Amino acid sequence: MSPDCLMRNIDITEGRNKTRAIDTVLNELSQRFGERLKTGMAIREQHGRDESFHKGHPPDCVVAVHSTDEVQQIVRLCALHKIPLIPWGQGTSLEGQVAALHGGVCVDLSEMNAVLCVNADDLDVVVQPGVTRRQLNEYLRDTGLFFPIDPGADASIGGMASTRASGTNAVRYGTMRDSVLNLTAVLANGEIIKTAHRARKSSAGYDLTRLFVGAEGTLGIITELTVRLYGRPQAQSSAQCTFDSIRDAVDTVIETIQYGIPLASIELMDSLTVKAINAYSKLSLPEKPMLIMEFHGTDAGVQEQAQMVQEIASGHNGSEFSWTSDAAEQKKLWRARHDAAYAIKALRTDGQLWATDACVPISRMAECIEQTLDDIDQSKIIAPVLGHVGDGNFHLCMLVDHAVPEEVASAQALHERMIQRAIDMDGTCTGEHGIGYGKRDFLKQELGGAVDVMRSIKQALDPDNIMNPGKIV
Amino acid sequence: MSPDCLMRNIDITEGRNKTRAIDTVLNELSQRFGERLKTGMAIREQHGRDESFHKGHPPDCVVAVHSTDEVQQIVRLCALHKIPLIPWGQGTSLEGQVAALHGGVCVDLSEMNAVLCVNADDLDVVVQPGVTRRQLNEYLRDTGLFFPIDPGADASIGGMASTRASGTNAVRYGTMRDSVLNLTAVLANGEIIKTAHRARKSSAGYDLTRLFVGAEGTLGIITELTVRLYGRPQAQSSAQCTFDSIRDAVDTVIETIQYGIPLASIELMDSLTVKAINAYSKLSLPEKPMLIMEFHGTDAGVQEQAQMVQEIASGHNGSEFSWTSDAAEQKKLWRARHDAAYAIKALRTDGQLWATDACVPISRMAECIEQTLDDIDQSKIIAPVLGHVGDGNFHLCMLVDHAVPEEVASAQALHERMIQRAIDMDGTCTGEHGIGYGKRDFLKQELGGAVDVMRSIKQALDPDNIMNPGKIV
Repeated sequence: MSPDCLMRNIDITEGRNKTRAIDTVLNELSQRFGERLKTGMAIREQHGRDESFHKGHPPDCVVAVHSTDEVQQIVRLCALHKIPLIPWGQGTSLEGQVAALHGGVCVDLSEMNAVLCVNADDLDVVVQPGVTRRQLNEYLRDTGLFFPIDPGADASIGGMASTRASGTNAVRYGTMRDSVLNLTAVLANGEIIKTAHRARKSSAGYDLTRLFVGAEGTLGIITELTVRLYGRPQAQSSAQCTFDSIRDAVDTVIETIQYGIPLASIELMDSLTVKAINAYSKLSLPEKPMLIMEFHGTDAGVQEQAQMVQEIASGHNGSEFSWTSDAAEQKKLWRARHDAAYAIKALRTDGQLWATDACVPISRMAECIEQTLDDIDQSKIIAPVLGHVGDGNFHLCMLVDHAVPEEVASAQALHERMIQRAIDMDGTCTGEHGIGYGKRDFLKQELGGAVDVMRSIKQALDPDNIMNPGKIV
Repeated sequence: MSPDCLMRNIDITEGRNKTRAIDTVLNELSQRFGERLKTGMAIREQHGRDESFHKGHPPDCVVAVHSTDEVQQIVRLCALHKIPLIPWGQGTSLEGQVAALHGGVCVDLSEMNAVLCVNADDLDVVVQPGVTRRQLNEYLRDTGLFFPIDPGADASIGGMASTRASGTNAVRYGTMRDSVLNLTAVLANGEIIKTAHRARKSSAGYDLTRLFVGAEGTLGIITELTVRLYGRPQAQSSAQCTFDSIRDAVDTVIETIQYGIPLASIELMDSLTVKAINAYSKLSLPEKPMLIMEFHGTDAGVQEQAQMVQEIASGHNGSEFSWTSDAAEQKKLWRARHDAAYAIKALRTDGQLWATDACVPISRMAECIEQTLDDIDQSKIIAPVLGHVGDGNFHLCMLVDHAVPEEVASAQALHERMIQRAIDMDGTCTGEHGIGYGKRDFLKQELGGAVDVMRSIKQALDPDNIMNPGKIV
């Protein structure tokens, strides 16, 4: 037999073994979980695809779990048969994190959505991973507390932890890295660990909490978390301001942060984004770079903050500064920002949104965005820019027709140049979306040998590579 | 030959091989580093001992290094001969982290003390690990920026990162976990990695920065770090207030934090600590539980904060609230707190300080301290209590004569009961000192199976266990 034939036969044998293994697993799961095991193609496809343009890959089945013990049972079964496990929260990831690249079992955690314990005095809450951020804030409504991290989508807390999500409030309240106090996870070997207790700080050994936050389910499945809460501010106000250039807007932000003004959020929109919003929301905002800001504090505090920012902005050619502490007015003002994604999508009905999320030191941000805007002009891709400018994090919202290969290639090249630019400026390819399978090459480009360390850790904790294989490393 | 004899002979052979290996390493190091290699007993003993009561263990030699490349050379040499490496910053650790339990090479990083680059717009600074926190703040004096983390001792930034240090300002500015943006480390295999770039946030793979922060040199030697800075506040003020009970003081803190009042620090001292300070500093403070607070903000802001805290304190039987924005007055007020360690030591000249650092959710803090004070009474150990009450972190400052075995046993038992109490209250055995070799048993008690995960990671990154062996895991 020629080596080629031999290889093909081994492949077929391996394929058969895998088929047999997944059949065994499906049988077992069916007996244990009954109706909660789904194998219909529609539900499998839906659970293998996230909100990005990345190609979905259906798992072999979807099991809705209700407890850590159930997750442990499934992991043990899959470990025995070397079948991949892919955790699922709300499917709002943006780098293909939920795609079952090698088939396997989708562990649907969305029904593990109980808020287990609000510790009001400690400003924390224990939740199951399927609780979504809106559900949590709804639950907290009468407590005077809130969970500040807002990535836009109504993501699950477990999913947000797994991708180290952040969003508009990170400049004040941090990211999921800062939010999670401890978590419970089921490891690839079926063991259940709790990474820490509820103390605010700890020096007790390696920071396993931070290791699992951002691991995208590749080291284990998160089944419980304690996250930090904050007291609702006594007063909240918002402001907007228009600038002649991106640089003026960014310089305003730099100075604001240096003064220690504790902005709750500060968002940048470029002129094309404002134009899109005007068209979509029937507004007549000046079509120039714009900052939208939110202030949290006491009545006197938020007023003082806004006055200081206005002064700083006027030193950087800021104009049409408007400030309001009226709740309805604020809602209207932020509506524009929140509708930005829809407004941008409406710019081109035959285009699919491709959202990037590079993040650079704020001192390089104006330069990075300016060079990228020049590049956008030349590459003829429609791509408004908006971002969490307080963190140096910005989104290029490319609208691409994926049926036109030249266009996809052009967008890809634009994206690659922008990431190289961000890395050259001491930044990162991803400020908040994660690596998934969409950015694996960029991770290597960004961190070089450090990726080998990640691989060693993955290998140590999941030697058979059953935990969300093909993601990150 | 009997198995016993065989075993003894193997031991002797191994011992001889080790002797030969360390001789080879010493010869090589002597050729490469000349005068910078020290083998005198005095310097070895000094570098094998930290500021705690834990028994020191001298390394076989001390090498003063000047660059990442030099550290890499030493690690490669030691890896080849399986000789332990122990990193050294300032020797201010408190759990025996610098003790060379199995001999080996002490890598003295104190001469790698250059501030490499202040990025004022980004509010960060790149430093070598030997820079101390006071040196850094001295360097930053004219920039309007400061490095807020203050563990008391003038520790090196590398050492502070390695033990995940914090201190009085953590309630506002976080711990070293939050401070470090990226770091460069030499791994056990001699590879050099950089864990991240300078972007404020990132979702690029596993959080290796946070893995090395708190790893106490057991995963690699940190040779460069970027840490966050803050703009010096426009105004700074301080206050103190006296309470009838620990519970009243703690309830004041809980309410203050829930109101979102951004205290820069809030320190608790029990009545015995105040008594010690009165005696040491010739003061006449009321000998009752006391809070000392610092406020950072605008002129109006710090005044508003202090007023709010005063109101809250008066609702919890707080009395003798005094507030000052005068710099000299503030210095005097904080002098008492800063001298607390000396004042406490002066309570008993034949006692050595044994400082614990349990940390609990703040809702349990009053209960935890009250029960511990009862326990102190019964165990007849002199042990004032003070703490970073905003984080739930408190120090029992036990004064123990280590020449009296019964006393040591009594202190040990008191400590063990307190840690069990803290763990039972969802807390940790160490809020800021780390594990070293002093708290290894407590780590297992606290985190159970999670310690096996730490061990797997250690094994994956340092299979020959040459990086600060015997610490943490």
